[in-house]
Amino acid sequence: MNSFGRIFRIHIFGESHGESVGLVIDGCPAGLPLSAEDFITDIERRKGGVQKGTTPRKEDDIPIFKSGLFNGHTTGAPITILFENNNTRSGDYEKQRSVPRPGHADFTAHARYGGFEDFRGGGHFSGRLTVCLVAAGVIAKKLLGTIEVKASILEIGGEQDIEKGLEKAIAAKDSIGGIVECRVNGLPLGLGEHFFDSVESLLAHAAFAIPAVKGVEFGAGFAAARMFGSEHNDPILDTSGKTSTNHAGGVVGGITNGNELIYRVVVKPTSSTPKGQYTLNWDTNEMETFSVKGRHDLCIALRVPVVLEAVTALVLTDLMLLAQRIKPVLA
Amino acid sequence: MNSFGRIFRIHIFGESHGESVGLVIDGCPAGLPLSAEDFITDIERRKGGVQKGTTPRKEDDIPIFKSGLFNGHTTGAPITILFENNNTRSGDYEKQRSVPRPGHADFTAHARYGGFEDFRGGGHFSGRLTVCLVAAGVIAKKLLGTIEVKASILEIGGEQDIEKGLEKAIAAKDSIGGIVECRVNGLPLGLGEHFFDSVESLLAHAAFAIPAVKGVEFGAGFAAARMFGSEHNDPILDTSGKTSTNHAGGVVGGITNGNELIYRVVVKPTSSTPKGQYTLNWDTNEMETFSVKGRHDLCIALRVPVVLEAVTALVLTDLMLLAQRIKPVLA
Amino acid sequence: MNSFGRIFRIHIFGESHGESVGLVIDGCPAGLPLSAEDFITDIERRKGGVQKGTTPRKEDDIPIFKSGLFNGHTTGAPITILFENNNTRSGDYEKQRSVPRPGHADFTAHARYGGFEDFRGGGHFSGRLTVCLVAAGVIAKKLLGTIEVKASILEIGGEQDIEKGLEKAIAAKDSIGGIVECRVNGLPLGLGEHFFDSVESLLAHAAFAIPAVKGVEFGAGFAAARMFGSEHNDPILDTSGKTSTNHAGGVVGGITNGNELIYRVVVKPTSSTPKGQYTLNWDTNEMETFSVKGRHDLCIALRVPVVLEAVTALVLTDLMLLAQRIKPVLA
Amino acid sequence: MNSFGRIFRIHIFGESHGESVGLVIDGCPAGLPLSAEDFITDIERRKGGVQKGTTPRKEDDIPIFKSGLFNGHTTGAPITILFENNNTRSGDYEKQRSVPRPGHADFTAHARYGGFEDFRGGGHFSGRLTVCLVAAGVIAKKLLGTIEVKASILEIGGEQDIEKGLEKAIAAKDSIGGIVECRVNGLPLGLGEHFFDSVESLLAHAAFAIPAVKGVEFGAGFAAARMFGSEHNDPILDTSGKTSTNHAGGVVGGITNGNELIYRVVVKPTSSTPKGQYTLNWDTNEMETFSVKGRHDLCIALRVPVVLEAVTALVLTDLMLLAQRIKPVLA
Repeated sequence: MNSFGRIFRIHIFGESHGESVGLVIDGCPAGLPLSAEDFITDIERRKGGVQKGTTPRKEDDIPIFKSGLFNGHTTGAPITILFENNNTRSGDYEKQRSVPRPGHADFTAHARYGGFEDFRGGGHFSGRLTVCLVAAGVIAKKLLGTIEVKASILEIGGEQDIEKGLEKAIAAKDSIGGIVECRVNGLPLGLGEHFFDSVESLLAHAAFAIPAVKGVEFGAGFAAARMFGSEHNDPILDTSGKTSTNHAGGVVGGITNGNELIYRVVVKPTSSTPKGQYTLNWDTNEMETFSVKGRHDLCIALRVPVVLEAVTALVLTDLMLLAQRIKPVLA
Repeated sequence: MNSFGRIFRIHIFGESHGESVGLVIDGCPAGLPLSAEDFITDIERRKGGVQKGTTPRKEDDIPIFKSGLFNGHTTGAPITILFENNNTRSGDYEKQRSVPRPGHADFTAHARYGGFEDFRGGGHFSGRLTVCLVAAGVIAKKLLGTIEVKASILEIGGEQDIEKGLEKAIAAKDSIGGIVECRVNGLPLGLGEHFFDSVESLLAHAAFAIPAVKGVEFGAGFAAARMFGSEHNDPILDTSGKTSTNHAGGVVGGITNGNELIYRVVVKPTSSTPKGQYTLNWDTNEMETFSVKGRHDLCIALRVPVVLEAVTALVLTDLMLLAQRIKPVLA
Repeated sequence: MNSFGRIFRIHIFGESHGESVGLVIDGCPAGLPLSAEDFITDIERRKGGVQKGTTPRKEDDIPIFKSGLFNGHTTGAPITILFENNNTRSGDYEKQRSVPRPGHADFTAHARYGGFEDFRGGGHFSGRLTVCLVAAGVIAKKLLGTIEVKASILEIGGEQDIEKGLEKAIAAKDSIGGIVECRVNGLPLGLGEHFFDSVESLLAHAAFAIPAVKGVEFGAGFAAARMFGSEHNDPILDTSGKTSTNHAGGVVGGITNGNELIYRVVVKPTSSTPKGQYTLNWDTNEMETFSVKGRHDLCIALRVPVVLEAVTALVLTDLMLLAQRIKPVLA
Repeated sequence: MNSFGRIFRIHIFGESHGESVGLVIDGCPAGLPLSAEDFITDIERRKGGVQKGTTPRKEDDIPIFKSGLFNGHTTGAPITILFENNNTRSGDYEKQRSVPRPGHADFTAHARYGGFEDFRGGGHFSGRLTVCLVAAGVIAKKLLGTIEVKASILEIGGEQDIEKGLEKAIAAKDSIGGIVECRVNGLPLGLGEHFFDSVESLLAHAAFAIPAVKGVEFGAGFAAARMFGSEHNDPILDTSGKTSTNHAGGVVGGITNGNELIYRVVVKPTSSTPKGQYTLNWDTNEMETFSVKGRHDLCIALRVPVVLEAVTALVLTDLMLLAQRIKPVLA
């Protein structure tokens, strides 16, 4: 499925080197003011080509609205947005078809789709589709109003100083991984459901839809494995639910507890590393040394914060609608 | 929602101190032989009262079949199973109503359900409901046939020697956390979907439905943040997709790659610790020292492996049905 | 799927001659007062054995609450209700196994479930399961408050006088069909969605889940085929949306228009007719004259009104929750 | 929701006088050959401007593929298709804004979306969107292979001779209704589910998503209300399930019985009739005589057959995938 959400639903489509990528949002309340300008900041944050360690590929990434907008407001009908792909260099990929790139979906997509998949630049599996997530996130954030969703890089290559982490990668002529943290402030107490629609279940589901994410943890996360209960439990201070510590990350029993929501994801090193790799050649059926040409980020984690904010906002908007804290028609 | 799955769907219900807990499974293929005996091993594995560090509460936990079985086989109609609660001591909880227990859902459930929630022993939020997950897992495992789903304790309180970890807790008179790992062998190449129905998204969604789970990681997991790409990428050895390392944990691009599936969850320390905690009293609106009576596990992680296997089996069964690798009628 | 609804979801299970039938309701708001007495009227209306033309089979049909209720109110957790089957005579059916009863699901269920289906008394396909729909309807009606859902027999065997219709059947020693109409008053303007979640789509979906329903029409229905536009269009009288006629049946563009909702279903004659029928014997592979023993209604339509009310109430409750006109927690 | 289907899912979007309308199909098997030519016949059948009684508005309606196709085959990723709107005359509608057109969604859409809806030409509620259904139907029909889905006009204005029916409308200077029948041959025995996913439930759900459909009946349909059981029951002739009559319309117990699937829909007269209508003016808050300008079909039923085939094919494709009778990757 390329769909997600119960009331506020997103559908994404497109391929890295196809004509365009895009999204449909179903269930967006009517009456939200929306224009192309709303998208600029987040789309720019996602783009490569600015930060050290990100790819020089640049798309203009101007949102092309195809439906659901009228007189500058959402109509309540499905919103369709396209982003054109106008900076593709498919030649780079076609000659490499015989070597399924390690870490990429080339091999698994081939198995799953029987060779019919669009393999150019990762096709539908490409990180290019995260622009659709970001666009949906822009709309979700507007719906969330004063609820603030903020993600940032926590560490790169084990260094909390990002520059230092990147220099490590540049020195090694290799790509590198990192950790991204997302924090949400202003969230009401009582969002979420027991068991399968717990806030953690939904956020993790969405976060793992971001390519390269390999782990998700809330609050103290994996460190909780070494903690005592009296240490991990967050004592409640008052009837607002405010706690003195926040090891739970703002979610208890699957439901928001009125404190800051905090969670982290690990982003694996970019699969396309400049370093040579010894791997299978499908044509010769032998191992060979393979090295990626193309244009790639050394550290894909750098581009993840805005994407993580986006999927977080999608989940929370859906939960806010379920909790009837966002109206179906905005005044 | 208390439902999960697209074709093979589970619904769970019940409360810790209600009359019973139970489950409905929809979409189970017809013709699967099934009897109460099939459940014994996994139900026993989940039970407290045996291992050091687990609660002395014991339920007989004999599955009571209410629908979907005929002549010892599944019929294709929904399967309903009940487990009676016959060992409850609600008195323990009622007097503690004024103090929402830190780490438990008492406070958040109250906010979410406006005080109408069954608060006895955690009500619907209780770990008691994991017996329903385990029962569903028994059926899923039978459907998976030779695919082997196996979870085990990796560490308790930071110790890889489980006994040592537990002794730490006993010595501290406190509860303690741990890490559980799940491995799946024999899984075909090519299961899963791109983006929102990636294998990682679905497994994480299900795993976070297990009470006390606060983090999920695949393969190298959070360690990937400190790795180079050339190190993390798993070189493909042959056309079966076998890789020389398994940092991906068996999933690339959201799709199984034919190698062992490996993932881990962190289980926070049992919220009910014998240690006193300074927390809010709703009646007095002041903080007070509170200490849990009741019967509780020192380390809830000990009971998680069979539950993690269960939710893993649920997800994989659903994906196998979608991939048409399990038939809707078994011969 | 045996599930229906987006927020207010019902799952039904059980077999005619199994131990019990039942239902789980997910997404019911917390705080609704509920007791066994609430169910008496509708459960009685559904029962056979009272009206001329209905079967003498009688179940006590006392709802057995298994979860989701606490202190006389719904808790917000899933509500599970069982109805025991204590008046079954399976012997009647087992000897008839070799002749798939015409009009019944015997043949199709066998094809669908490969012979593993519980064939006794129609098994899971039995009209017995409508008691679960009725029970869910009781809860939905309570949630709808002053919105009144009322269904009644419109005609039996072509006669608007019900007694006359039934006497026709008794005279012919045959079963007979009928038409049931459902009307809803007090419904707000603006419920429903465009296209796939139109009010008509959802109501028809639910109505066709009632065994023996073979047609659904709204407002003027099939008569619209012979009408002119100027005749069928309902002129709007004022800003409340009140129309001078109601050929639309209260739904325009898939959305309620503030007028009475009116729709009708046709109920085929009871498949189990006392009349002999010439049909296949699976054992001999030849046609033979077959005549139903067992206990059966001459006119199943007589029992449909309360079931049609129930599924109507389910759909409307779900739409009211989506429109945020029923709160997730009732004060 | 503008989504439908469990495995083979369609999402539609767009507005009558917006830039384009379109669709996304999720879950389409990989490897289906597909080109713009495949769409010509059905798109032409849907178009107005050819038959007497249909509107002169003509769109080129060339499908613009945006994703999911590669080297002339489906890839397994979502398929996106746009149709441009290049023949709109919005001026016609804007001046009529003050009079919500009787029979149209103007009034209900306004209530539902608070005035934010795109009202031009019916906006998202327009019959224009049926081109998206038709396009999805083209793909579904290709997947169904030898299963033949065929719909045709049964009667117009009560006349089985279509020309005669239309002349009635032309003479009356009014629009007129009709009945469309859909028949499916070659369908396997055993498709569908009990209760909520019965074949009838799913087909009716989809059929009522077609604007102007106000009733759906299977086999004998509403005539069953006047039949005896011995007459309505279809005697089974042999082990293939072939019956001597087909009053069930090919579905028993919600499951296909191996006979021809037959169902009918009633299509109300086109709401836009040339005849004057006395109805509310929102500005003056008084009734006035209103007459539609614009370009409109006298009998919208004429354009419904290909749309009914399309939604039928969607439902059946989904059921065939669930029954594992269409593979996820086509060889």
